[in-house]
Amino acid sequence: MTTTESTGVTVLGLGAMGSALASALLDAGHATTVWNRTPARAADLAARGAAAPSDIAEAVTAHPLVIACLLDHASVHQSLDAVIGTMRGGTLVNLTTTTPNEARELAAWAAEHGVDYLDGAIMATPPMIGTTEASILYSGPREVFDGVRPVLDRWGTSTYDGADPGLASLFDLALLSGMYTMFAGFLHGAAMAGSAGMTATEFAARATPFLSAMTAGFAHDAAVVDGGDYTVPGQQSLDFSDLSHIVRASEEQGVAPGPVAAVQELISGQIAQGYGAEGFARIYESLRADAEVAR
Amino acid sequence: MTTTESTGVTVLGLGAMGSALASALLDAGHATTVWNRTPARAADLAARGAAAPSDIAEAVTAHPLVIACLLDHASVHQSLDAVIGTMRGGTLVNLTTTTPNEARELAAWAAEHGVDYLDGAIMATPPMIGTTEASILYSGPREVFDGVRPVLDRWGTSTYDGADPGLASLFDLALLSGMYTMFAGFLHGAAMAGSAGMTATEFAARATPFLSAMTAGFAHDAAVVDGGDYTVPGQQSLDFSDLSHIVRASEEQGVAPGPVAAVQELISGQIAQGYGAEGFARIYESLRADAEVAR
Repeated sequence: MTTTESTGVTVLGLGAMGSALASALLDAGHATTVWNRTPARAADLAARGAAAPSDIAEAVTAHPLVIACLLDHASVHQSLDAVIGTMRGGTLVNLTTTTPNEARELAAWAAEHGVDYLDGAIMATPPMIGTTEASILYSGPREVFDGVRPVLDRWGTSTYDGADPGLASLFDLALLSGMYTMFAGFLHGAAMAGSAGMTATEFAARATPFLSAMTAGFAHDAAVVDGGDYTVPGQQSLDFSDLSHIVRASEEQGVAPGPVAAVQELISGQIAQGYGAEGFARIYESLRADAEVAR
Repeated sequence: MTTTESTGVTVLGLGAMGSALASALLDAGHATTVWNRTPARAADLAARGAAAPSDIAEAVTAHPLVIACLLDHASVHQSLDAVIGTMRGGTLVNLTTTTPNEARELAAWAAEHGVDYLDGAIMATPPMIGTTEASILYSGPREVFDGVRPVLDRWGTSTYDGADPGLASLFDLALLSGMYTMFAGFLHGAAMAGSAGMTATEFAARATPFLSAMTAGFAHDAAVVDGGDYTVPGQQSLDFSDLSHIVRASEEQGVAPGPVAAVQELISGQIAQGYGAEGFARIYESLRADAEVAR
């Protein structure tokens, strides 16, 4: 299908994120139909002009473009298995958080029923929806993305990641892995500083500019990974930076080493394999797909 | 002691960092004496005017201010135990990487010999030394810090962290814990993206602005930690963000979950204790000193 700036849209799932998506469509003047398993959530949107049938069969046939923003992969099937047959010729854009393989499964299931499928991953909080700061990744057939893009762009900055429907989810989860791990590292550092009486807020005032500046080093490590030579000069060796000071200091202060101990394990694994003279990026070899020694 | 801008200084240890420290002192016109266990490392500095005795006893008595930048805590004792008795009345600034407890031990040992002791932690790479971008943390008696500060400021931005000689090391290692953990999270994300053919450099181009922006969220989590109420609104619950999607996606792609699995363990621990409805900052309770359930 090809949408325009006045295309009607159905939104399934009215949690905080689904509600924000529907709200942005209403703001932009789209005829909007909303549905939620528990109908009370639709009241505010209905008051603003959204159609809000209690029957999902009515919701998914109201418009040929259906957006799903449900709890998880299983809830997509629970909500849509009974009605997907009525959506033939239409388009399903699934913004529900799934794994890449779950997205691929949903794409195949939609195709069986003659429904075009695009998978999306939202990198934003609900209040950001409707601004260019909301980044949403999409994957699936290029022509499906191009066709519905005028609607997608209502929510934020749309990025097309490729034909494999799993890619948007994969890249989203890859970035979130970095984010959650970074936050855990921050909280571990805060616990170390806290053991000497520094507040977490005082520690954040130091950690925020420091870690923000250090992200500039990702490009260096990435170049080492892509080059495949972890011996390039200018790096501290794993032997030198084996994190033993950090883990020991953490334990001496009564702070559980948690996340940094996991990083040390990766380093120790590479040292044990004989790579102690190489740089930190070497731990990529313990993580990457088809690693010789999966951890 | 009170130094001036022409005070003579001895630097022990001429690895990349010690050499950078001595070089910055020579650049600033200080009479500089250097010593290294293997004397060849002193050749370049000697050619630029440094005194370079092969005997450490001669080096530590050349000036009342001695800087140590050695391999580790043990090497400070190995180098100085035989000569500390000759340093009475002088000042030892130890920039060797140690744990907080090791710094406290060295402070007590120096005091026994009538030597003022300041511990320092260098948050910079050797090429940054001599610029304001080099941040160096110090702890120990305030008056010792103030007395030698004209020399310390030759190297970069000096921060005084408190009288407990362990604090500089503690805050340094706390920040480094965040940094190494963040880099491990980046490399894990790169491995996930890499499993679908994205280069690490392409992933870095996405991860650098994203994670840099996300550091602004540290202040929020810190306020939650300091407030002690992990139920404040506006947070995703641990139940909702239990990282199961990330870990499952990682495994589906053949990528070892490594660091993010360690974060998930902390979350699971809190959920098991009944805190699944609370926010991510709750994992601080599994890490902090005297945590009920040390991990």
